[in-house]
Amino acid sequence: MIHIYTGNGKGKTTAALGLIIRALGNGKKVCLIQFMKKNFIYGEIKFLEKQNNIDIFQFGTDQLIDPNNPDEIDFKEAELGYQKAKEILNSSKYDLIVIDEINVAIKWKLLPLEKQLELLDIKTDAEVVMTGRYASPEVIKRANLVTEMLEIKHYYHEGVQAREGVEF
Amino acid sequence: MIHIYTGNGKGKTTAALGLIIRALGNGKKVCLIQFMKKNFIYGEIKFLEKQNNIDIFQFGTDQLIDPNNPDEIDFKEAELGYQKAKEILNSSKYDLIVIDEINVAIKWKLLPLEKQLELLDIKTDAEVVMTGRYASPEVIKRANLVTEMLEIKHYYHEGVQAREGVEF
Repeated sequence: MIHIYTGNGKGKTTAALGLIIRALGNGKKVCLIQFMKKNFIYGEIKFLEKQNNIDIFQFGTDQLIDPNNPDEIDFKEAELGYQKAKEILNSSKYDLIVIDEINVAIKWKLLPLEKQLELLDIKTDAEVVMTGRYASPEVIKRANLVTEMLEIKHYYHEGVQAREGVEF
Repeated sequence: MIHIYTGNGKGKTTAALGLIIRALGNGKKVCLIQFMKKNFIYGEIKFLEKQNNIDIFQFGTDQLIDPNNPDEIDFKEAELGYQKAKEILNSSKYDLIVIDEINVAIKWKLLPLEKQLELLDIKTDAEVVMTGRYASPEVIKRANLVTEMLEIKHYYHEGVQAREGVEF
């Protein structure tokens, strides 16, 4: 089954993380591939790195990307992420494969949409989860489950900054 | 800050679980209180029970509740859950307090809305997360962050049943 968690509200990556611990709790094998998140210390990564039965691969840099003017390395890392995702989806080694923020990588044209669709078309028995705002209609069409996380209210608008342990 | 994850889509409890591991990864102390989920073996509980820095309290039974005709024990357990939540919110022992499915307990009138509002009005430095469909407007008004998980597509409608490691 293919899950997509998209939309402008908080909860997309965290929902995928929740699925990861549910799977680990049931003895399943998990792979987490993250786009645009390398070298930044997220609480969830510190936690998951210590667990068994999970492999984590991060692509990107620790710098924010300018969507209108990404650096060459951003394209290069996105391509490496795609190659890794393809390898993992074809490997039959995992029960759950989470590809975090790929929807944004596509929206920002770090990767062509065709590559995401190619990943979605790989036949696998694994549960496949893709996250990130801006899931394209073609991606939604191929998915079995799509949740839009809709922001009804967000404390960012009250001026609250991202906080360790809550946003990262 | 108070977060509410509501709506009819998949991802509410899992988003709260993701926040839990992000907090644990940053060395924070977590309390998870669940309504209507006792004695049923969820993968996430099997996993979280083995972790440090988290306390878990479950209330309810392992039976599905008939929303139109709950059993006496369902009311009793919901009341116990409310008492525990009140104690925990007043304790200053935790950095993150997740009160899972409380919105549904209110909607099904296992608890009066006033008790949920009372919990929301407790002053605490902890991050407080409440989940479940049907968050009431009064709850949304008191929250700092509200995400509606909107079902765009769900494989249940293709006849797929809840699966171990994915739904529980």
